[in-house]
Amino acid sequence: MFFRVKETAFHCVPDRPDPIFARQLQEVLGGQWGEISVMLGYLFQGWNCRAPGKYKDMIMDIGTEEIGHVEMLATCIARLLEKSPVETQEGAAKDGLVGAVLGGAKIQDVIMAGMNPHHAIVSGGGATASDSNGNHWSAKYIVSSGNLLADFRFNVAAESQGRLQVARLYNLTDDPGVKQMLSYLLARDTMHQNQWLAAIRELEEDGLEMTPCPSNFPQELENQEFNYAFLNHSEGNESSQGRWASGPSMDGKGDIKYVEQPPAMGQVQDLSQVDPRLFGTPKAALTDKERGLMFQDEQR
Amino acid sequence: MFFRVKETAFHCVPDRPDPIFARQLQEVLGGQWGEISVMLGYLFQGWNCRAPGKYKDMIMDIGTEEIGHVEMLATCIARLLEKSPVETQEGAAKDGLVGAVLGGAKIQDVIMAGMNPHHAIVSGGGATASDSNGNHWSAKYIVSSGNLLADFRFNVAAESQGRLQVARLYNLTDDPGVKQMLSYLLARDTMHQNQWLAAIRELEEDGLEMTPCPSNFPQELENQEFNYAFLNHSEGNESSQGRWASGPSMDGKGDIKYVEQPPAMGQVQDLSQVDPRLFGTPKAALTDKERGLMFQDEQR
Amino acid sequence: MFFRVKETAFHCVPDRPDPIFARQLQEVLGGQWGEISVMLGYLFQGWNCRAPGKYKDMIMDIGTEEIGHVEMLATCIARLLEKSPVETQEGAAKDGLVGAVLGGAKIQDVIMAGMNPHHAIVSGGGATASDSNGNHWSAKYIVSSGNLLADFRFNVAAESQGRLQVARLYNLTDDPGVKQMLSYLLARDTMHQNQWLAAIRELEEDGLEMTPCPSNFPQELENQEFNYAFLNHSEGNESSQGRWASGPSMDGKGDIKYVEQPPAMGQVQDLSQVDPRLFGTPKAALTDKERGLMFQDEQR
Amino acid sequence: MFFRVKETAFHCVPDRPDPIFARQLQEVLGGQWGEISVMLGYLFQGWNCRAPGKYKDMIMDIGTEEIGHVEMLATCIARLLEKSPVETQEGAAKDGLVGAVLGGAKIQDVIMAGMNPHHAIVSGGGATASDSNGNHWSAKYIVSSGNLLADFRFNVAAESQGRLQVARLYNLTDDPGVKQMLSYLLARDTMHQNQWLAAIRELEEDGLEMTPCPSNFPQELENQEFNYAFLNHSEGNESSQGRWASGPSMDGKGDIKYVEQPPAMGQVQDLSQVDPRLFGTPKAALTDKERGLMFQDEQR
Amino acid sequence: MFFRVKETAFHCVPDRPDPIFARQLQEVLGGQWGEISVMLGYLFQGWNCRAPGKYKDMIMDIGTEEIGHVEMLATCIARLLEKSPVETQEGAAKDGLVGAVLGGAKIQDVIMAGMNPHHAIVSGGGATASDSNGNHWSAKYIVSSGNLLADFRFNVAAESQGRLQVARLYNLTDDPGVKQMLSYLLARDTMHQNQWLAAIRELEEDGLEMTPCPSNFPQELENQEFNYAFLNHSEGNESSQGRWASGPSMDGKGDIKYVEQPPAMGQVQDLSQVDPRLFGTPKAALTDKERGLMFQDEQR
Amino acid sequence: MFFRVKETAFHCVPDRPDPIFARQLQEVLGGQWGEISVMLGYLFQGWNCRAPGKYKDMIMDIGTEEIGHVEMLATCIARLLEKSPVETQEGAAKDGLVGAVLGGAKIQDVIMAGMNPHHAIVSGGGATASDSNGNHWSAKYIVSSGNLLADFRFNVAAESQGRLQVARLYNLTDDPGVKQMLSYLLARDTMHQNQWLAAIRELEEDGLEMTPCPSNFPQELENQEFNYAFLNHSEGNESSQGRWASGPSMDGKGDIKYVEQPPAMGQVQDLSQVDPRLFGTPKAALTDKERGLMFQDEQR
Repeated sequence: MFFRVKETAFHCVPDRPDPIFARQLQEVLGGQWGEISVMLGYLFQGWNCRAPGKYKDMIMDIGTEEIGHVEMLATCIARLLEKSPVETQEGAAKDGLVGAVLGGAKIQDVIMAGMNPHHAIVSGGGATASDSNGNHWSAKYIVSSGNLLADFRFNVAAESQGRLQVARLYNLTDDPGVKQMLSYLLARDTMHQNQWLAAIRELEEDGLEMTPCPSNFPQELENQEFNYAFLNHSEGNESSQGRWASGPSMDGKGDIKYVEQPPAMGQVQDLSQVDPRLFGTPKAALTDKERGLMFQDEQR
Repeated sequence: MFFRVKETAFHCVPDRPDPIFARQLQEVLGGQWGEISVMLGYLFQGWNCRAPGKYKDMIMDIGTEEIGHVEMLATCIARLLEKSPVETQEGAAKDGLVGAVLGGAKIQDVIMAGMNPHHAIVSGGGATASDSNGNHWSAKYIVSSGNLLADFRFNVAAESQGRLQVARLYNLTDDPGVKQMLSYLLARDTMHQNQWLAAIRELEEDGLEMTPCPSNFPQELENQEFNYAFLNHSEGNESSQGRWASGPSMDGKGDIKYVEQPPAMGQVQDLSQVDPRLFGTPKAALTDKERGLMFQDEQR
Repeated sequence: MFFRVKETAFHCVPDRPDPIFARQLQEVLGGQWGEISVMLGYLFQGWNCRAPGKYKDMIMDIGTEEIGHVEMLATCIARLLEKSPVETQEGAAKDGLVGAVLGGAKIQDVIMAGMNPHHAIVSGGGATASDSNGNHWSAKYIVSSGNLLADFRFNVAAESQGRLQVARLYNLTDDPGVKQMLSYLLARDTMHQNQWLAAIRELEEDGLEMTPCPSNFPQELENQEFNYAFLNHSEGNESSQGRWASGPSMDGKGDIKYVEQPPAMGQVQDLSQVDPRLFGTPKAALTDKERGLMFQDEQR
Repeated sequence: MFFRVKETAFHCVPDRPDPIFARQLQEVLGGQWGEISVMLGYLFQGWNCRAPGKYKDMIMDIGTEEIGHVEMLATCIARLLEKSPVETQEGAAKDGLVGAVLGGAKIQDVIMAGMNPHHAIVSGGGATASDSNGNHWSAKYIVSSGNLLADFRFNVAAESQGRLQVARLYNLTDDPGVKQMLSYLLARDTMHQNQWLAAIRELEEDGLEMTPCPSNFPQELENQEFNYAFLNHSEGNESSQGRWASGPSMDGKGDIKYVEQPPAMGQVQDLSQVDPRLFGTPKAALTDKERGLMFQDEQR
Repeated sequence: MFFRVKETAFHCVPDRPDPIFARQLQEVLGGQWGEISVMLGYLFQGWNCRAPGKYKDMIMDIGTEEIGHVEMLATCIARLLEKSPVETQEGAAKDGLVGAVLGGAKIQDVIMAGMNPHHAIVSGGGATASDSNGNHWSAKYIVSSGNLLADFRFNVAAESQGRLQVARLYNLTDDPGVKQMLSYLLARDTMHQNQWLAAIRELEEDGLEMTPCPSNFPQELENQEFNYAFLNHSEGNESSQGRWASGPSMDGKGDIKYVEQPPAMGQVQDLSQVDPRLFGTPKAALTDKERGLMFQDEQR
Repeated sequence: MFFRVKETAFHCVPDRPDPIFARQLQEVLGGQWGEISVMLGYLFQGWNCRAPGKYKDMIMDIGTEEIGHVEMLATCIARLLEKSPVETQEGAAKDGLVGAVLGGAKIQDVIMAGMNPHHAIVSGGGATASDSNGNHWSAKYIVSSGNLLADFRFNVAAESQGRLQVARLYNLTDDPGVKQMLSYLLARDTMHQNQWLAAIRELEEDGLEMTPCPSNFPQELENQEFNYAFLNHSEGNESSQGRWASGPSMDGKGDIKYVEQPPAMGQVQDLSQVDPRLFGTPKAALTDKERGLMFQDEQR
């Protein structure tokens, strides 16, 4: 069960409206790697977690924190869209092209010049649950697999992609208030990368999971010829120069070999016939008799 | 540029048709973590890669290998759907409920009992680019960020989720031919987990990237109070027991502190007015005069 | 069965081309609350309607009317994109930024400046079944539940969101021909809001449905402690000041109470074990014996 | 900012596992009208709300409550999938076809018989953010328009559709623990229907909004001939029998008239030429000269 | 503008309920190649059509006809779901497995055994705008390009895929009433394949379009070395045996040549650097000085 | 199984960066008719093909070729985004509005002016698997039906829509390097249109398929009254003037008749009752007794 305090977790007060940046900032709210993704992703992982309490509590704590991050970004975007376009023009007028666009412009001109039309027509100056191109947020972006190592690895990736996008946005604005907020989000992503990396270490030290994941699957059942082989699939062999191509494997369980010309081990890719009642193109034209058999009930 | 040999990379020949398992196997072909995802994900990462040649070549080699995995799974599914349902019934008859369903059944009964209706109505006995619930594959599943550490971390996650799903499917079939193919895929996922972990190590050793990612962003610009703090967001403190809550951070750049009762640092979450011409609900009802101003041009 | 007359239901003739506004106008054609949504939503509600004939006939009449609205908007958009960009520039030249963009511009410059690229590359100057951000129309936007009160309430919302968006678009154009069409659509939305509100009243007077919907479900089976309680979920109690927090309920069947500090009534959110063959992270590491049991058939 | 207590808002403990019902219950977790939709829909409406504090606080309170409902449903589904299939069979054995399916069944048979394959292959016995057909949750399901009347009307619809689905699910299970939870959700939906209806009344009494919505748009600018007219679009006139076809309008601002044979008021639906460089099919074949002009730069 | 008569275009009355077949029949209502696709696809093509009147009128006539087909299928599905499950069991009891499932079954058992859960929980016994796997209809399925030859070719494909699916469904039911309806749809698809093929011929005879489409693009601007060459991309040359590999081209404008070993004509696929402020992985680690430059404004 | 050479199939080297055109070019990479669609569409058709070897080999050859086209477009887009915006400005400065936008602009100004924000924030200067509006590629765009005639007709449409879009893009750029690449793609689309048309001819000559497709379905089972009838659905009869309205049918199997006023052949569109436990709106209000029966078990 959840409760709310009325203050936001951190400052999210832009110095002035900027409808153009509002569109871009949507990416880290409602994009593939935005805060909705980590919020709902972590909450589902936490609710589905069956492992000892420290794991579930840690996952739920960060999931709950992320609700507050969604709140901060939604608030910041609504404020970037806040005042009337008339007022906006004045504040923005000294701002190069932004000013050029808004100076003397009518409301439709503002929209034309890179603003998200949904911010005007659909949400009326509010944030939306979508990305910087207007794609609606989708649960295709998240995972909760029941296996914590598989999920924590995904979470490390999410915090890396997320911090990368925030860093890019940091370079796309001059607004001190916005930068203050982004600076906080960068800090939290730094902590969260460390947090998930630590949690992976903890899983290993607790003997719960290790590489290859899932570690409960008996490795002797996997093909022993190809589980530590790098298969070159191109002319030339630059790919042989990295650590992935020779030496002991990262899991300590094998030695990597480099196969420069991997043979095709299977059969020619062809198929047999399907049921003629599916009307697929057959290997040879059906005889009239065969066609008749398919519908004999009908033709009586 | 790409070329093809006519044999598949490995065996993918089921011993007998099984339309029910064909539906389940779609998950690792066209699902979030299926082979289409790694194939297209890696190819885009490789094509977009600007780093030294060994990285691009390695990424492209594995991306090209994955085209062959898509081929193997599509072929296996088409074969699981291969013979006519009449023949299918005989092969499957001894198989518990599968047999119960198919024994003496008409074609619609087969479909009813758990088969993917698209396998009959849409693809006519062929594989589809969708998951075990019939969701069409979507590029929402992949990423190519330009930052190799961020992407390699995603790839480790993809190979972990993928191996997890293949392991589950291994337990969902008795077919020796299918198990032989899955055993190969498990082995490749083991190698690929190791491969991406090795590539992360290589990036660090080459001085290209490290934690926190992206490492080129000057860390002094991020908030210094919160970048190594665990913020408890619940009653109780089980989350303080893990490695993520104290001690040196995983990146070696800070010491983690546990904040049991994090305060809200921001302001009350409220907003100012927007342009009245957007017809949002205002803080107070507009006066007639104000409303008139909005449309004065019209009313002349 | 449906027939067509060749005239549109109302005028939809812009005075001049405007590719920028064409993009914006797509919202009320192919967006969440656009005319395709009400057209297909009402038609499905009508086709699925099992209630007395006056309801079905009314729903189908408005659904059929909406096909004509889709036609008007598609036609208007195709006309806004109509003439060649060369001619367009002249007509638009006096139009502030629009003119600035088009004056002396090449075709790619037009597209750059806020035009929907699909209008050039995909539809070649025609309307598309998508919104102002290019999201394809989706049946996720509609509902036909079999319960007319639930659906009519949705329809009131649809006509409100729709009229709101048309009103915003009315402020985003100066074109008299477009405004004439929008003025008609605003009028129809006014009627349709009234129409669905009247239909709700009719349902209640006919004794078919009332609040809480569905009214056929025996209310004594719902939890009697929480069906008229407002549960405060935050510090502070501003939410106690509205009509929703005290007094008789709107359905006349209860008295609302305000619960300032609602307790958690459930158990700690934790879970038991799942089948180990799913390879989820367990509460404790599996013993070798346990792992062996999972695959004993394989290892013989 | 948000905090969590570790108990769920109410009981969500099924008496026994039921993977079939787990699939169905997903509808009210991750479907169009499920708890994720009301949770994120209300939170975005609250965060975007610019109206007086009682409204924002009320919206945020219910939005925060709904996070707890998502938690209850996710927990309940994870518990319905909880024990191993072996144990499941025993508990379910007396249950008609469910028992028939599970008695002596292998794990793949369970899945075949109506279980969501994602519950085994993807989530490993956990809840997913998708509906009963496996469609991933999408932000296409929600709206936050900035106009509270438009949104509250949507919310009334959401609580009606939601209660309708919970009522149907109540009839699809015999499990006392599940029924206890559903009984609670039914009660809350009753309250929430009343709550939004009360909030609509409050908006009207505060003079903020009324019918037709948005009420700030000057109604004299809408077409005066069609704003209170019912347009029959079919042979026959059953639709004239309801309250929507005559008498004073629900907003008290007009009198409804029934137009039995509405004429087409527009022009024949046809279009002029587009830019030939878009290669659309023209009204007449281009002459060679015209074609040459299009590419004269190229041919020099 | 559109009008409606109250009778359906043709009979759509099943002899008895069949919730299993109702799910399958959804494919040709709301699937990729279902009637909604041709209805909306043709209507948009007609509305966007700028060619002479006979084309527009023909396209609109078939588009309007398809609204009636959507009506027939929605009606048929609602009737297949019509009576109560109790009654359903009796009608279906003699039907092999369908009977086995329904005989003595509770409502949840019916759903479990292959019924679409949305037909119970979401639509309450009505048709939905989705396919046989529950995927919502999407405008991604349709096209209106402005070029009639490109679109008519798509329409031939649509009528072919559609007739194929109806033919498969014809084999999936024994219900005489359903077969009567499918027999009508098969006939219309036969006509419509002929109709679009005739329209392609007409376009060519009117000199409006021909192969290669778009024919207005001056063919001398395309690469003259590769416009009539078949490029073999595999070991072996079975692909040389078809009409596509030699002889005059179908458009009569060239002679096809078979290139058994096509060389790569481009450069090695590599890239240069991007802006370091995007934090992509660079070709070499940035120097401290370079990093400093990126943020010099910040660090002052 | 697939292999790669490191050169691209053809030149794809723009003369200078152009982030605006990079966005537009995405359409033919990741749009409905882009290269990913033909690549994955043909590969699935080839893998699922059960017909004689020349067909499968031909389909797979073109599918493999298309992987190389995806590579070329991804590479070209990454190069269009290549250099830093600072450098970009210089190269582009002489380019009309593009120059106006970039001259003296900051990075956010570039993005504002029509660039795809994902190219900066998400992919960091790389191509994405999405279209010119940022819609992620979806498998909804492709088909593999098992029937080669149905699929080859779709492929002709795909090559026509694709060539049309490339032709439009050819007019949207002045870059000689880009035009060289597009000239190659236009040529390949010309060949591929011819190739699929030839393959259709081959199918007919091999006796495998013909019109109406699927030809294996016995045409005597389709309705004989409507399989060669054009049904006018509008006032007026312009549609009678084309080849589709009279004369022998294109398949040579019938004579087309024009039906100017087609009657409705079905019944009034109405429905019977559903199970009251679904809580749909009934034909008449349920009696208390009826309601009681529904829940009698509960009320004991």
